[in-house]
Amino acid sequence: MNAERIPDIIIGRLPVYLRALQRMAEKGVQTTSSQELGERVGISAAQIRKDISQFGEFGKQGTGYHIPFLLDKLRAILKVDRIWDVALVGAGDMGHALARYQGFSNRGFQIVMVFDNDPSKVGQMAGNFKVENTDVMVERIRAAGVKVAMLTVPAAAAQEAADLLAKAGVKAILNYAPISLNVPPDVRVQHIDPATHLQRMTYYL
Amino acid sequence: MNAERIPDIIIGRLPVYLRALQRMAEKGVQTTSSQELGERVGISAAQIRKDISQFGEFGKQGTGYHIPFLLDKLRAILKVDRIWDVALVGAGDMGHALARYQGFSNRGFQIVMVFDNDPSKVGQMAGNFKVENTDVMVERIRAAGVKVAMLTVPAAAAQEAADLLAKAGVKAILNYAPISLNVPPDVRVQHIDPATHLQRMTYYL
Repeated sequence: MNAERIPDIIIGRLPVYLRALQRMAEKGVQTTSSQELGERVGISAAQIRKDISQFGEFGKQGTGYHIPFLLDKLRAILKVDRIWDVALVGAGDMGHALARYQGFSNRGFQIVMVFDNDPSKVGQMAGNFKVENTDVMVERIRAAGVKVAMLTVPAAAAQEAADLLAKAGVKAILNYAPISLNVPPDVRVQHIDPATHLQRMTYYL
Repeated sequence: MNAERIPDIIIGRLPVYLRALQRMAEKGVQTTSSQELGERVGISAAQIRKDISQFGEFGKQGTGYHIPFLLDKLRAILKVDRIWDVALVGAGDMGHALARYQGFSNRGFQIVMVFDNDPSKVGQMAGNFKVENTDVMVERIRAAGVKVAMLTVPAAAAQEAADLLAKAGVKAILNYAPISLNVPPDVRVQHIDPATHLQRMTYYL
């Protein structure tokens, strides 16, 4: 298996499978089929079998997938068989909501530091974290070896913050600011922008 | 032009173009090229030309795109040349952040009602909205003719809330709950789940 050769669109579906399988496991379900999983996630059974088979033979004809085994495999493939430290930049409403969000730790992530450039926010609490000044961000992130960040600053401040994150050695940025970011080629960005997602749907209304 | 024949992946890129063009317009820029737009959004100029040409000849050889004209066209295509009323379900941290978010109105959306099933939240304020009981949700949404909703309830409550939204006539759901939803075929769902987005990136780390 050569990781580079798996199409990005397949990688994008794996977290959706992982999420559904994890939920089934939490309910005590031990086995599933591509058919059943497909119905849960709205993807065809054939597509699921094809996607998963890119990484090995994880299912058995007739008995389907053993969920704990497939969970382990998917977590290892996506490298969330560990906990990634995450830096959160921007302590506004969205930053506070994310700092308090309980859904990260069982999916491979934990916020470990929160930054803002607003003096009135620095020193305040966001979730369990004391907000630190962005002045010290590069140094703090670099010293801690943090590779993952979430960006919840206003659009006008996002590029500058992204530049600092790249400088600090961050390689994956989840960007909540409604603006495209220019980053070095070895830095990945995923966008969460509710208006963009809504506009994808209004087209069909 | 037959709307049904445009691939979903192209529709998904149009809001990204629209967002970048809107930002350029706000800065007073009047014209752009597929090259320049491509650099801003990280998509090739050829892809942008091809995507936009699905809907007509909106650019001119040599002079590129007139931004106000292209904005009007993209807004009409995505049906955000109007303001869509949005129902928000779930008045937790994320619901509060969205209720206060200022970035919807200039992109075609406005929250008009907020619901929660927690008696301690009903009657409280979320942004400028008094939280209403989900008991009255179907009736309220149906009476107001609301077609778009955002779902920020816990995973365990999401399917039931989605069923109510579908029953109320909602056709587009932006789902923040970390779970896949089963909805009737005429209802569209987009997912916003930060852990899923992060897992798409850790694969490459």
